[in-house]
Amino acid sequence: MMNILVTLDRNYLPPLRVMLTSLLANDPGETFDVYLIGDGLTAEDLWSLEALLAPRGRLRPVEVPEGLFDGAPVARYWTRAMYYRLLSAQVLPAELERVLYLDPDILVINPVRPLYGTDLAGDLMAAATHTGLLAGITDPVNRLRLENDEAEAYYNSGVLLMDLEAMRREVRPADIFDYAREHADILLLPDQDILNGLYGGRILGVDDSLWNYDARRFDRYLLTSQGAKDMDWVMGHTAILHFCGRRKPWQRSYQGRFSALYKHYQRLAERQLSPP
Amino acid sequence: MMNILVTLDRNYLPPLRVMLTSLLANDPGETFDVYLIGDGLTAEDLWSLEALLAPRGRLRPVEVPEGLFDGAPVARYWTRAMYYRLLSAQVLPAELERVLYLDPDILVINPVRPLYGTDLAGDLMAAATHTGLLAGITDPVNRLRLENDEAEAYYNSGVLLMDLEAMRREVRPADIFDYAREHADILLLPDQDILNGLYGGRILGVDDSLWNYDARRFDRYLLTSQGAKDMDWVMGHTAILHFCGRRKPWQRSYQGRFSALYKHYQRLAERQLSPP
Repeated sequence: MMNILVTLDRNYLPPLRVMLTSLLANDPGETFDVYLIGDGLTAEDLWSLEALLAPRGRLRPVEVPEGLFDGAPVARYWTRAMYYRLLSAQVLPAELERVLYLDPDILVINPVRPLYGTDLAGDLMAAATHTGLLAGITDPVNRLRLENDEAEAYYNSGVLLMDLEAMRREVRPADIFDYAREHADILLLPDQDILNGLYGGRILGVDDSLWNYDARRFDRYLLTSQGAKDMDWVMGHTAILHFCGRRKPWQRSYQGRFSALYKHYQRLAERQLSPP
Repeated sequence: MMNILVTLDRNYLPPLRVMLTSLLANDPGETFDVYLIGDGLTAEDLWSLEALLAPRGRLRPVEVPEGLFDGAPVARYWTRAMYYRLLSAQVLPAELERVLYLDPDILVINPVRPLYGTDLAGDLMAAATHTGLLAGITDPVNRLRLENDEAEAYYNSGVLLMDLEAMRREVRPADIFDYAREHADILLLPDQDILNGLYGGRILGVDDSLWNYDARRFDRYLLTSQGAKDMDWVMGHTAILHFCGRRKPWQRSYQGRFSALYKHYQRLAERQLSPP
């Protein structure tokens, strides 16, 4: 049994269905408790997700206590939803020890069980950095912007394995709100920037080519691996394809190496809505 | 229940496994009898195919009567296997009325049931032509070469829906062997050339973009449809992707629009061999 966390607003329901369809298909021996923190989902939305997961997964909608956001800064374009994954230790049931957070713009293509079983060795979370791919561009900027003196990698917040017990001890909502308030003018990707700014030193780095493969960067992975990470390698090893960036594979105009694969999973997810 | 026919030698066992995996995955409500005419398959090969099909399909290995090939011309590079699909009416059980032949270099991505249910309206078979894609190149050549005066389309023999009752009445092995003997020097793709030369006028044409999509020709389909048959359309409508030509998607060096999709299905097929 694996605990999965997803957070979303209603616009991301279709990609979430695709992500969950791919998760079930590619971890065939597993069962899942899928914790959902979402705003504006209807009873029918929840029912359709439950139907998609059955019989190998259960949906666990999570109520967010109103009081949790007392003291949260309100800024234009920011919603409460941006804090959900950072506050998951406060929001998820107290008995939960470990959870794997997954963005909805993800396709799972191989088992995530090895990531889920990773020994966090005292760290709060495990995450991957995409800096190797963007070397010389993102890193210095982010270091400066986030005053991250220790120059840790800049972790992508789309895949986060969380030790909830450690987070309950160390993550304080007030710290997060304070950080957001103080840095409001320079936060580009608020949740990710806060994650790195506050907890970058307490994150275990994992291999992004396995656990958070940036689907825009096939050529770069191929190049930096001297040709080893070709399409056969990716399909045989990569567990999590992450469709980072503005262009999304569910858009009609999307073109990319993984376009056919993603759109095929869209079709598989749709079929769940209208079985034969 | 659908009857599927596959013919292969042992080199094509891995792609056959991929094709069957995709067939099961994309016709989820169906069960299959898979008739296999193959040379050199071991008991273990057959067992592994049975395991892949269970519980939704049964493997039906077919014995080819030795006497059937009395009178068949023997030419360099030709094997008996080349005749199997043409002689399926003679080789398959007499009670079988209909069968869908599928090449092993195929990926099924949507239900084939509508094709299977096609009314053949007196024709022997249904098949697709790729001529629209190769207009002006293949057709005149083939017409000349095969003395096909009626100028029918040149049908691709990779996907054939067969009315076995009609074929038992009209297809005579002696005709096939005679044709092969007479045209031995100009047959480029022997089975396909014989099919078109002898039975081209008795084949019902079906839409190749649905039932025998040439995976090399994404750009051509897109162009000839004025942009309508984009990747979303293909993933939503095309049932059979056919990896025609010399370059095959299971080769490491293969690059194409459907490379990730095919190689993912390779992985799914491998997983059947070593379930979790």
